[in-house]
Amino acid sequence: MKIIHGGVTAPLGFKANGIACGIKKSKKRDLSLIVSEKICNAAGAFTANKVQASCVVVTRERLKDARAQVIVANSGNANCMTGKSGFENTKTVASCTARILKLDKKDVLVASTGVIGKPLPIKKIIGALPDLAQGLSKRGSAYAAAGILTTDRIVKEIAVEFWIDKRRVRLGAIAKGAGMINPQMTSQGPRHATMLCFVTTDVVITPNALRDALDRAVAKTFNTITIDGDMSTNDMTLVLANGMAQNKKIVEKTKEFRVFLKALETVFLTLAKQMIRDAEGATKFVEVSVTHAQTFEDARSVSKSVAKSSLVKCALFGCDPNWGRIAAAVGYANAHVDPWRMHIYLGRELVLKNGGRVAHQAKALNRVFAQKNIKITVDLGLGKYKATAYTCDFSTDYVKINSAYRT
Amino acid sequence: MKIIHGGVTAPLGFKANGIACGIKKSKKRDLSLIVSEKICNAAGAFTANKVQASCVVVTRERLKDARAQVIVANSGNANCMTGKSGFENTKTVASCTARILKLDKKDVLVASTGVIGKPLPIKKIIGALPDLAQGLSKRGSAYAAAGILTTDRIVKEIAVEFWIDKRRVRLGAIAKGAGMINPQMTSQGPRHATMLCFVTTDVVITPNALRDALDRAVAKTFNTITIDGDMSTNDMTLVLANGMAQNKKIVEKTKEFRVFLKALETVFLTLAKQMIRDAEGATKFVEVSVTHAQTFEDARSVSKSVAKSSLVKCALFGCDPNWGRIAAAVGYANAHVDPWRMHIYLGRELVLKNGGRVAHQAKALNRVFAQKNIKITVDLGLGKYKATAYTCDFSTDYVKINSAYRT
Repeated sequence: MKIIHGGVTAPLGFKANGIACGIKKSKKRDLSLIVSEKICNAAGAFTANKVQASCVVVTRERLKDARAQVIVANSGNANCMTGKSGFENTKTVASCTARILKLDKKDVLVASTGVIGKPLPIKKIIGALPDLAQGLSKRGSAYAAAGILTTDRIVKEIAVEFWIDKRRVRLGAIAKGAGMINPQMTSQGPRHATMLCFVTTDVVITPNALRDALDRAVAKTFNTITIDGDMSTNDMTLVLANGMAQNKKIVEKTKEFRVFLKALETVFLTLAKQMIRDAEGATKFVEVSVTHAQTFEDARSVSKSVAKSSLVKCALFGCDPNWGRIAAAVGYANAHVDPWRMHIYLGRELVLKNGGRVAHQAKALNRVFAQKNIKITVDLGLGKYKATAYTCDFSTDYVKINSAYRT
Repeated sequence: MKIIHGGVTAPLGFKANGIACGIKKSKKRDLSLIVSEKICNAAGAFTANKVQASCVVVTRERLKDARAQVIVANSGNANCMTGKSGFENTKTVASCTARILKLDKKDVLVASTGVIGKPLPIKKIIGALPDLAQGLSKRGSAYAAAGILTTDRIVKEIAVEFWIDKRRVRLGAIAKGAGMINPQMTSQGPRHATMLCFVTTDVVITPNALRDALDRAVAKTFNTITIDGDMSTNDMTLVLANGMAQNKKIVEKTKEFRVFLKALETVFLTLAKQMIRDAEGATKFVEVSVTHAQTFEDARSVSKSVAKSSLVKCALFGCDPNWGRIAAAVGYANAHVDPWRMHIYLGRELVLKNGGRVAHQAKALNRVFAQKNIKITVDLGLGKYKATAYTCDFSTDYVKINSAYRT
């Protein structure tokens, strides 16, 4: 597998664009479009929040036939909790886009991110769609990636090239993160943060294999990150596979499926880590690894509990190796925990062994916590399961950004 | 019921004291003692964290006979995750206190609060116990209240006088809060924050009635507050009832029980609110009221989800009435939620009605969020259950306090 240029336009047959239509006061790009030359097999994973933006409801519905050709997305407005007119607006965006592209509206997927509870400025979007479509190009991925950002500082985009049964194939993606990030996405049903990720690929793959790969990859990557513990109403990951690489069709439980899954996981993990590094106010990248849990769910629950703890995150910001806060967060996770069997490591330094502290030179621990990349390991000493969560620290800047977001 | 002076020494037969023994670098008071003239019926509610300080384990064990006479508590060190020597230290504190007071060590309850994972400076404590006991007095409640504080800025104490079957009785309490506050305490078993509350009363009451009243009152008061969502390893509420008021014995399911319960709830709610007002970095007092939930657990889960949301709390700090974040936090609570039946009020202003925003003048909402005391109401529109959570905002000062706590 090789990293290549081009983002979502790297695979055969995809064009993209992103422009400013006036939703954002900053006049930055806020409307993006990705179009495939041919109809695609498609799959989506959506927030588990029970309060869902209208784009989540409408796009999930439209993916029931597992086919799509277009993704249109706006930033600056989540179009969530906007009543029935919110749904009408989502459908209007889809049908206007379809009309301009001379495609079927049921093959247009819509995504939104931004402030909740404000009516979508539908006229601005409709007015900008012709220009947006006009500018579609093979070099438009970075523009599309810019058009979905909110408080993100950097564009998140990646593409890889790999081989399926001697055919060269490509996979590209763009994403956004930054805040309200604690995604729990599945293709099945409700889960919530706003993170968006749009994936294009030219592989030939069955709809079932595509959905299965998406769910597995999302569970191991995006769903393991948390910035603020707040699950969004708008999280969405969409994959379009147009089959133009003409490889042998990928079906489940084959070697080819595993190769595709590995590529998808690599792309998602890269983007997930980019989201953490670009998180609101973040100064540190933190990996919380839990080992020897009784069940996978226990491992996952403990890793997220530590990664979400405000006190742990403040200690990380302050470079204060206060591992007692880590132990407390382990203890209130919904998991089987025996303090007398628990070990905690900061970096490679063992600080807690079987419920008792290990004496340390303060300097060694301070050195670990002074780094930009910090690994915390919790060995529960109970079973064979493990999980990793990724997070950042909690800074005064995080509070500043989020206390003045709308004003 | 009348509020009176005297805190934990207001009831007949109780003395208290608090001194500085050198655990805190600041040289502030850090060791407290409460002693009853007579043996008491006693009950305790403890953190639900699975990682528990040794004082929690030892004190719960000693309360199995529902009898006690002394509470000794230190601040500045949680004596948690300190291995077997931590347990020995807790027992040593109890036995030395008993010896000096010429009482039985099994009637001494021990509590600690402060940094996790540091060995308890046992010599300092033992060395200070004679002075601590020497200074016990009927005027010592405020000293005892000062001795249990950590990052708290104000002493929390209260006493009330009421009537049980024509006998005048008294109930007094001291407490501390400030950080790592998301208590879930029961008399049964594990739950976690460090909040401490010690209650004295001169009523005659059976052990079962005392424990029952404690559990009911804690569930409706302390367990409804959250400052940072981090449940502590050391939360503890202890009640000593010495019976010196010679009232008709209080048993469960009687009018007298309800009178006692009401007094206990009033005292706890007053202290719980004081904790929120004195929370680390807090600039606002926030009440999250959830109505018309399908079950009580749903109401509780939604109220806590909103009260714990970092994004909601940052918006409160910034006086930004961003109610979309409230809706998102409702949606990711572990509860039955139907966005189309949900109403949200900021103060008295209806902002969300049946899943759609209610148009508002920005000024009216800004005015609500500019206040020091803010009430958020979420009407789920589904059933008859309700619950209230109390919290504060999330400020840059909170981050500063907790990023530099140990240094």
